[in-house]
Amino acid sequence: MTTTAARHVGVIGLAVMGENLALNIERNGFPIAVYNRTWERTEEFINGRASGLNVAAGKTLPEFVALLERPRRIIIMVKAGAPVDAVIAELIPLLQEGDMIIDGGNSLFIDSERRSKEVEAANLHFVGMGISGGEEGALWGPSLMPGGPKQAYILLEPMLQAIAAKAEDGEPCVTHIGPGGSGHYVKMIHNGIEYGDMQLIAESYDVMRHALGMTAPQIAAVFAEWNKGPLASYLIEITAEVLAYTDPETGAPLVDLILDTAEQKGTGRWTSQNALELGSPIPTIDAAVFARTMSSMKERRVAASQALKGPNPEDIAAMTSRIDPPRLLGYLERGLLFAKISSYAQGMALLRAASDSYNWGLDLAEIARIWRAGCIIRAELLEPIRAAFGAQPDLENLLLSIGFLDIVNEGAGACRSVVTLARSIGVPVPAHSASLDYFDSYRTAALPANLTQGQRDYFGAHTYRRIDKPGIFHTEWNAEPAS
Amino acid sequence: MTTTAARHVGVIGLAVMGENLALNIERNGFPIAVYNRTWERTEEFINGRASGLNVAAGKTLPEFVALLERPRRIIIMVKAGAPVDAVIAELIPLLQEGDMIIDGGNSLFIDSERRSKEVEAANLHFVGMGISGGEEGALWGPSLMPGGPKQAYILLEPMLQAIAAKAEDGEPCVTHIGPGGSGHYVKMIHNGIEYGDMQLIAESYDVMRHALGMTAPQIAAVFAEWNKGPLASYLIEITAEVLAYTDPETGAPLVDLILDTAEQKGTGRWTSQNALELGSPIPTIDAAVFARTMSSMKERRVAASQALKGPNPEDIAAMTSRIDPPRLLGYLERGLLFAKISSYAQGMALLRAASDSYNWGLDLAEIARIWRAGCIIRAELLEPIRAAFGAQPDLENLLLSIGFLDIVNEGAGACRSVVTLARSIGVPVPAHSASLDYFDSYRTAALPANLTQGQRDYFGAHTYRRIDKPGIFHTEWNAEPAS
Repeated sequence: MTTTAARHVGVIGLAVMGENLALNIERNGFPIAVYNRTWERTEEFINGRASGLNVAAGKTLPEFVALLERPRRIIIMVKAGAPVDAVIAELIPLLQEGDMIIDGGNSLFIDSERRSKEVEAANLHFVGMGISGGEEGALWGPSLMPGGPKQAYILLEPMLQAIAAKAEDGEPCVTHIGPGGSGHYVKMIHNGIEYGDMQLIAESYDVMRHALGMTAPQIAAVFAEWNKGPLASYLIEITAEVLAYTDPETGAPLVDLILDTAEQKGTGRWTSQNALELGSPIPTIDAAVFARTMSSMKERRVAASQALKGPNPEDIAAMTSRIDPPRLLGYLERGLLFAKISSYAQGMALLRAASDSYNWGLDLAEIARIWRAGCIIRAELLEPIRAAFGAQPDLENLLLSIGFLDIVNEGAGACRSVVTLARSIGVPVPAHSASLDYFDSYRTAALPANLTQGQRDYFGAHTYRRIDKPGIFHTEWNAEPAS
Repeated sequence: MTTTAARHVGVIGLAVMGENLALNIERNGFPIAVYNRTWERTEEFINGRASGLNVAAGKTLPEFVALLERPRRIIIMVKAGAPVDAVIAELIPLLQEGDMIIDGGNSLFIDSERRSKEVEAANLHFVGMGISGGEEGALWGPSLMPGGPKQAYILLEPMLQAIAAKAEDGEPCVTHIGPGGSGHYVKMIHNGIEYGDMQLIAESYDVMRHALGMTAPQIAAVFAEWNKGPLASYLIEITAEVLAYTDPETGAPLVDLILDTAEQKGTGRWTSQNALELGSPIPTIDAAVFARTMSSMKERRVAASQALKGPNPEDIAAMTSRIDPPRLLGYLERGLLFAKISSYAQGMALLRAASDSYNWGLDLAEIARIWRAGCIIRAELLEPIRAAFGAQPDLENLLLSIGFLDIVNEGAGACRSVVTLARSIGVPVPAHSASLDYFDSYRTAALPANLTQGQRDYFGAHTYRRIDKPGIFHTEWNAEPAS
């Protein structure tokens, strides 16, 4: 432990994410100071995982601040919400013009927008930085999504580039996202997309076990195989590992013993709420949020399973007996790829809508670029997505990108087969279904909303437009027309 | 026009809803006064539709207030949002203890909660009253959803019962919903359910035209027929009329000439956002909001329809040629009924969740009762729904009500046939699909969320529970188990 030289950067909050980020920074050669609300935790870290490393510590917040070189770079790694405000309020009087407060937690972007204004009003800089990659990512290289003033980003860039994950081409997974809360916004969308990916994978697994009667290890082998193709990604990789894991105690696949009640921390829900606010639909992510919520109602589901009836078992047996397994597995792989691309198309369209609405000037190619490594949704697919937006920065929808057109047009058929089969045997696949609904609605020139408009005009005189002439029209529907 | 006797009630705001409500009150024998921001509008009303009727008018707000008997009953019928706050702010200094301000607009319930506190702080009463039934309802009998202090409701009840719609059994469609913003909340859910109903109907129509090649008048006849069965409802009735209407100018069915871009005023979106907040899923309503948003992207859809491909036309032709029309129409009717019941089950469950969360003590049977007439979603179905919650006030989910069990178990199969057919021929039916997903998820004892929990524990150490023993567990997934 060295405390003499001025420290390049400080980290507040020594829970596992804060510790790991601090160790990552230290390993990359940047002199670091740490602070935690309780000194016991700090001592434990300094004498434990940081023992022998170049990490300074402040016992009090003023001591900690005094350790840092100017302009100060202070990364807050505390629980999102009130604790972040508390730390900022304590910090502000201790700092000087140009110092930087970086919130590395999972803050709601609206809070970051507000904090940004509060901190800038004190002549300091605020950077809301999304960090993805979990504990391992924080330690070995996360994907970093910093939003805030460009001049602050420039002063942080060397360190951020050093600690960030590196994509296959060596590029660090960090970029200046945009002003204000844009960094945390992009992290929120990342998490929403992660919800979608996870639900799509869960549905593929569910179809395999119900339609093909496959065991967890057999399904693990399929995912391991898929991880060599266009679906290659961190989530597919760990899916294979989770499914292959044997419970040492019982000898059974551990996944078969896990209770099916998925939890959520709110970022998926926030994404859906924001999409509703901006009127940019993300049905696949909505379906994933829905599925997690339904899963949490375990007791009700168990009770309802006795009373509510799906297709009758003989019909299901007859249908599944006619399935050609390799063919269905092919549909599942291509259907999952299609559903994932549809979900990313929705997510990227929402980013565009947010960028327009909040005046953030987001660069979608850059965002896809920094998601290629380090984060939970890292995937081979992100390179072609980056390329699509790189080639066409004003691309309206990813589905329409020349590079994706053939894949989605072909994959839609596979997804259609998966969804109709799952439906027929009573297996709910809401996220696959939503990905297909998005595609089918988006490609339909004439939807039945003409009837909806007629109804609205009937009961509320809301008026309508016509396809054969311009203008706004109203009809007295229940009077006979004067023909 | 009489201005001598003290007036029982006053209406502020003479747009069509305010006018119609005032005429309804007058027709029912309650002395009424009116006020509008511009005197011209008031004069127009007094000398026009209210000519010869017992309606007093105030030229200024103090004049208007002076016309009313105490405690005063003042119904505000102005545009939701800032105008409501402006009128309340002007009114408060003119009123006295115990006077009642009733907001009859489509206010967001959160605003009503806030206004309730502000108005009560001035020793006045605030009633947030949802009104459904459109212009005709306001005039001839709407469904009324007043929320606020019980003592204020009691003073309003005789007039509200007089002007409200009457159900077949003669009961007026009004009840004391609960405190604070609960009246506007229930109106919001009503509108969300209305979105669901309308989208389900639009999808039935879309399947008929694409799968059966039916014309608008032919489809009108089907809806007219359905209106004689368990689907009988205002929305089905007007659907038949809208579809049957011939454009006098072109001789074509008018619905075929209406642009398919459905608009929305926000209550559907609010419902979805609130459901996310409370964690009580309403996928059918979400799908309806999604469908309206997609419909509004007309230009993008027309462009995308050239590039994105559905099932190939020969396959569609082959599939549709094999359809037995009466059989499909049967599936559509029973499928629509099923999908509607599923949607109502979701909406009623959300009401229960809101009641618990906001401590409103909502009576779901009473709410179903007052929706039986006057409002847009009025339907035969609401009587059995009322009966279900009347018989079992703690009924967890409408799907599980003994009276509905057979209908939903049988109807699910019909809906399944509709959804798989529509999917196969590329017609998006997101609301039918969502209704079925809700049912299929709710009746599934074991969802694939065990895999989701395994993934979450893998990348975020989020822990999981097991089915075979109590406790909270974490696994080091990428270390080999010590077997």
